[in-house]
Amino acid sequence: MLEELKQQVYEANMELPAKGLVTYTWGNVSGIDREKGLFAIKPSGIAYEDLKPSDMVLMNLNGESVEGDYKPSSDTPTHLELYKAFPQVGGIVHTHSAWAASWAQAGRPIPCYGTTHADYFYGEIPCARSLRPEEIEMEYEKNTGLVIVETFQGMNPAYVPGVLCTNHGPFAWGKDAEEAVHNAVVMEEVAKMAARTEQLKTEVGEAPKTIQDKHFFRKHGPNAYYGNAGK
Amino acid sequence: MLEELKQQVYEANMELPAKGLVTYTWGNVSGIDREKGLFAIKPSGIAYEDLKPSDMVLMNLNGESVEGDYKPSSDTPTHLELYKAFPQVGGIVHTHSAWAASWAQAGRPIPCYGTTHADYFYGEIPCARSLRPEEIEMEYEKNTGLVIVETFQGMNPAYVPGVLCTNHGPFAWGKDAEEAVHNAVVMEEVAKMAARTEQLKTEVGEAPKTIQDKHFFRKHGPNAYYGNAGK
Amino acid sequence: MLEELKQQVYEANMELPAKGLVTYTWGNVSGIDREKGLFAIKPSGIAYEDLKPSDMVLMNLNGESVEGDYKPSSDTPTHLELYKAFPQVGGIVHTHSAWAASWAQAGRPIPCYGTTHADYFYGEIPCARSLRPEEIEMEYEKNTGLVIVETFQGMNPAYVPGVLCTNHGPFAWGKDAEEAVHNAVVMEEVAKMAARTEQLKTEVGEAPKTIQDKHFFRKHGPNAYYGNAGK
Amino acid sequence: MLEELKQQVYEANMELPAKGLVTYTWGNVSGIDREKGLFAIKPSGIAYEDLKPSDMVLMNLNGESVEGDYKPSSDTPTHLELYKAFPQVGGIVHTHSAWAASWAQAGRPIPCYGTTHADYFYGEIPCARSLRPEEIEMEYEKNTGLVIVETFQGMNPAYVPGVLCTNHGPFAWGKDAEEAVHNAVVMEEVAKMAARTEQLKTEVGEAPKTIQDKHFFRKHGPNAYYGNAGK
Repeated sequence: MLEELKQQVYEANMELPAKGLVTYTWGNVSGIDREKGLFAIKPSGIAYEDLKPSDMVLMNLNGESVEGDYKPSSDTPTHLELYKAFPQVGGIVHTHSAWAASWAQAGRPIPCYGTTHADYFYGEIPCARSLRPEEIEMEYEKNTGLVIVETFQGMNPAYVPGVLCTNHGPFAWGKDAEEAVHNAVVMEEVAKMAARTEQLKTEVGEAPKTIQDKHFFRKHGPNAYYGNAGK
Repeated sequence: MLEELKQQVYEANMELPAKGLVTYTWGNVSGIDREKGLFAIKPSGIAYEDLKPSDMVLMNLNGESVEGDYKPSSDTPTHLELYKAFPQVGGIVHTHSAWAASWAQAGRPIPCYGTTHADYFYGEIPCARSLRPEEIEMEYEKNTGLVIVETFQGMNPAYVPGVLCTNHGPFAWGKDAEEAVHNAVVMEEVAKMAARTEQLKTEVGEAPKTIQDKHFFRKHGPNAYYGNAGK
Repeated sequence: MLEELKQQVYEANMELPAKGLVTYTWGNVSGIDREKGLFAIKPSGIAYEDLKPSDMVLMNLNGESVEGDYKPSSDTPTHLELYKAFPQVGGIVHTHSAWAASWAQAGRPIPCYGTTHADYFYGEIPCARSLRPEEIEMEYEKNTGLVIVETFQGMNPAYVPGVLCTNHGPFAWGKDAEEAVHNAVVMEEVAKMAARTEQLKTEVGEAPKTIQDKHFFRKHGPNAYYGNAGK
Repeated sequence: MLEELKQQVYEANMELPAKGLVTYTWGNVSGIDREKGLFAIKPSGIAYEDLKPSDMVLMNLNGESVEGDYKPSSDTPTHLELYKAFPQVGGIVHTHSAWAASWAQAGRPIPCYGTTHADYFYGEIPCARSLRPEEIEMEYEKNTGLVIVETFQGMNPAYVPGVLCTNHGPFAWGKDAEEAVHNAVVMEEVAKMAARTEQLKTEVGEAPKTIQDKHFFRKHGPNAYYGNAGK
């Protein structure tokens, strides 16, 4: 069932070690078929080198596994909450990529210091608040999703396709699993550059709003003209 | 038309991922045939692994595409202004390489702290001023070129073959596309070393003028004797 | 004798250069057969590319070499003390991996700033005190082991599977040689992230205790549910 | 003539890009035959991928090229002064490796913060003083050698097999070309760790003298017992 989706999600998962975003089995990617209301996600605790497309676990939006030989990733309840709250999202990825996780450990959003950031993320990449003790003790992974949704109240998740979770690490998303991973790679690069920018200038301000607007909207929305191969 | 130039520009573009200067499709290289008044440039939004020499787009100095199946890189108007203003330049490259882009995001020129820098860049690598809102809103990429030209008033672009654009990233150039990429690789290395130098010593000064002169002029100009294979 | 153990210890040693934890011949891994009271360890001064499983040296718990063509690693007396004091440990690794060694050179334990750390190490990774001059001059490598044992008084080495030695570098351990190396890789990653976290926020506190508990105990102990492939 | 020496020097030169110490054609290695009073050195400006053992240039100790199709490295006069002043040295290497060069650009010696350093360098790695303007203008490369020799007055170059040159980069040496490169790799690693150590602890002191002595002399001199394969 949904062999093409499983293949896509498999390939997106394999991009994580290929792009240096994960160590060992850390990280997981999912992708959803909105019509069928099912998403495919990496199984828990399987090494990337042993992973096969058919190992992807199919879940419904009630959080039930409907197909697959393995348990789904332990972070599945987080993915589920994001799919339920963000209807425009088609793929989700979680990693502990080192630069983004360092911002998360510092509990700081990543300011938009330049056009590399503005090409993909409109404004700062937010940092979700710490979970309260009771949110950690019960349904921790579900609450991780809910606190992300809380963070995005009044925001468009298509304009800011990623978030940091305090003391934890990044989640990113996109229209499908491949784009989610693409955005996770960009977030790691942007997190690295922002840290170095602050090292070079203690009192550094965000990039001017006009340049943030220019770069984001030349790539996104109805008037985009950048990176379009045309003919 | 100009198959050799397209081949050179193609190879120079492929050096960007090989040298670790770009992520995904970021970055673009062009090279010019001054006699014919035409330059070849990477097409917009094509992945490096899919790029072929015949995909390079040929442009004239009025900014018109004269050959090619694709749209030219969105940054083409920047390249165009540099070719028009700097007649000694034969190749241009733009990247978001992480160390140079971090200096650009900090809005700081890269001071000449040592001979690695002085071997290639005579004095600091300047940082062009921020564009004004109206320069961003209309003809942004052209204005990016014009503000670089403004930065180099009274300077020799052959002596300082690169620049940072505030909140954006580096441009570099050379006598051809290959040398432009070579200078971009050196700028990234120099940007990394300069950041680390400042980490090691808060109050660090530029390298003495005599050693800057010695290193630059033993490699450049009529009395150069360094790196010349001889026979 | 104990060919399977030697093979495991050989493979764990070869993981050190593969994971980028060692330069040249630095680093050594051992693994123990508790029933026979013998451990296998890397020989001293042999390049990784020349290493063979049969080169592993077999030692008894009196510190005597009982099989092998070479001298055991100079750090063997440290391994020996750890095996004697920590009966639950089945494998030990020592490296000079750069991030962990930098914390050791600073003489600082690595605080638990996030879940990457808490998934593997319960609380801070301690830094053993400096050896006294007389402990350095006589039986230095044995005393290095004893000071680690002293550091873990009242602690469970299965909950904190690694340590820093002041001015020196990290030791890590696990239920076997493979897990010891896995923990050494994680310690290096965690050391890197913790350094960057402090760079991003001067006054950073440890992750809240509840999240440390949650992450450690969802992976370890009787109620673990994370990273278990299930079926 | 001296084909074996040329082969060794060729191989040592090829280690520089393999170990990530050089960009493009930067860096050069030489090795000497003390009986014949001749040293072999990398030719100037030849790309590493095009280098052949027969390209090595043979020089005598008067600084004259006695065999070879190319000009010797521009840094040859520096190598020459070191061979003349340090009779125990059999091989020399110069690079602009990024961490060591950053210390050189900061004009700071590398303090001995730990055992990785003490295993190879006894005490700090010194930083030679800046050359005076007249030393730069005339016979710059020779004077670079002389100021290193000046720095080592009263020191044993076999105990401290490397140096930084202010605003420039590192030189390292050893009993032959291979060991010189080995020491250059270690210096880069040690330079990296020392920078990170200072980032982690502002007021960090050198490693205690007893541990420096222990680590250096367990590997060097008549009582060495470390890293000796034995039998």
